[in-house]
Amino acid sequence: MERKLILIANDDGVHAPGLHRLVEAVAPLGDVVVVAPDGPRSGQSSAMTVNGPLRVEEHPEYGDAKVYSVSGTPVDCIKIAMNNILKRRPDIVLAGINHGSNAGVNILYSGTMGAVLEGCLQGIPAVGFSLLHHSIQADFSQAMPLARMITEKVLANGLPHDVCLNVNFPAKVTIEGVKVVRAARSHWTEEYQTYTDPHGKPFYWLTGGLVNEEPDATDTDLYWLDRNYATVVPSTTSQNALDAIGLVTDFLK
Amino acid sequence: MERKLILIANDDGVHAPGLHRLVEAVAPLGDVVVVAPDGPRSGQSSAMTVNGPLRVEEHPEYGDAKVYSVSGTPVDCIKIAMNNILKRRPDIVLAGINHGSNAGVNILYSGTMGAVLEGCLQGIPAVGFSLLHHSIQADFSQAMPLARMITEKVLANGLPHDVCLNVNFPAKVTIEGVKVVRAARSHWTEEYQTYTDPHGKPFYWLTGGLVNEEPDATDTDLYWLDRNYATVVPSTTSQNALDAIGLVTDFLK
Repeated sequence: MERKLILIANDDGVHAPGLHRLVEAVAPLGDVVVVAPDGPRSGQSSAMTVNGPLRVEEHPEYGDAKVYSVSGTPVDCIKIAMNNILKRRPDIVLAGINHGSNAGVNILYSGTMGAVLEGCLQGIPAVGFSLLHHSIQADFSQAMPLARMITEKVLANGLPHDVCLNVNFPAKVTIEGVKVVRAARSHWTEEYQTYTDPHGKPFYWLTGGLVNEEPDATDTDLYWLDRNYATVVPSTTSQNALDAIGLVTDFLK
Repeated sequence: MERKLILIANDDGVHAPGLHRLVEAVAPLGDVVVVAPDGPRSGQSSAMTVNGPLRVEEHPEYGDAKVYSVSGTPVDCIKIAMNNILKRRPDIVLAGINHGSNAGVNILYSGTMGAVLEGCLQGIPAVGFSLLHHSIQADFSQAMPLARMITEKVLANGLPHDVCLNVNFPAKVTIEGVKVVRAARSHWTEEYQTYTDPHGKPFYWLTGGLVNEEPDATDTDLYWLDRNYATVVPSTTSQNALDAIGLVTDFLK
């Protein structure tokens, strides 16, 4: 049987430790090709480069994994990997392990999940992994065996049409188990810190915190991450609000 | 009664004709404030600037509308408008009129819809408008009265929690009417055109076309846009695949 082909992207860039840990975790499961941004692209969502060129660089292998960097977004990485780098269709698209949470509303902004949604749109089982710790020195040791287990199960079972997985791991704790749940309704409370540049002109820098709008909902990712469980959220590329079609039809009459 | 406050963003940038046409279309309905990117940001999805500063510039008024540009993405425009520019919460967030389609799968990549989804997340009724024509000289005259009618109805009725509208207008035709429908399942077939730079190194540029996966589905936007109707797709920020939770729970056991 042909070995499984595993495509890995991320949004923290080709040199991020979380990417290396994911390669190590899943290397026993197949042939790994990394196609990742050439630098940090956090918060890039499903952005893609439409009005400019892209560069691709081949890097030294990491273990047995081939490694390429792309001068664009996580979505660009998946598109150019599929079109110009990989010799055949991958069996799975993985992204991460992200340095920082992609739970709750964060899926909407996440470049990691942008790569995963792009794989999903192309009909490939796809899984994003994130650790709730931003440090470059974060400890991924508890996340790695779970990332491998989930990847193995998805390779064996596939995923339904237009369904991908958003996996988050708690940090600095013993992980109690895995919960398959939905993303909690949540939003960011934000402010812009204001500065003055050397020429006397203002500039602004985003800061803020995530607010869980349903802290008691036991079927959500934020609830279980708080309680030291890893969470798996089945996610979709569709953003149709089917329930609202009737109401909107009525009031536009 | 206080006049309605209308916040308008886009992804084609503060100088795009489609933005000016939208301001003209809705100016009679309230006080308009434009907060738009300082240049083109097509394909920026829900990307935001997390690792760098933002600049805000005040421009001359357009009619009676105040106009600001931001050195970031469409999502950045909404966030900084809400936090640092507007004196009160807007009654509605509009984006557009986009030069080009945001029908089908395009909502996922669209910076225009990124701004709309951000307004929706902040609990404000939000509508994105797009014309199926990329030209800077596109004719928005048929779209304008419909954009005004839809804005007026949404100001009067509001929208359900976590529902926003993605409105697309056909171009270069007499618009037959308005259909409230869902986004068609669709994807891009893509290729990268390959070039060689003056130093002999390759670079790549994305090209492609949209494929409608369900061309006969009469409840979809792509179907009706093909038949010269404007389409209104109720859309949501949620990407939960609730139906898959049971199945994924079983196979991860």
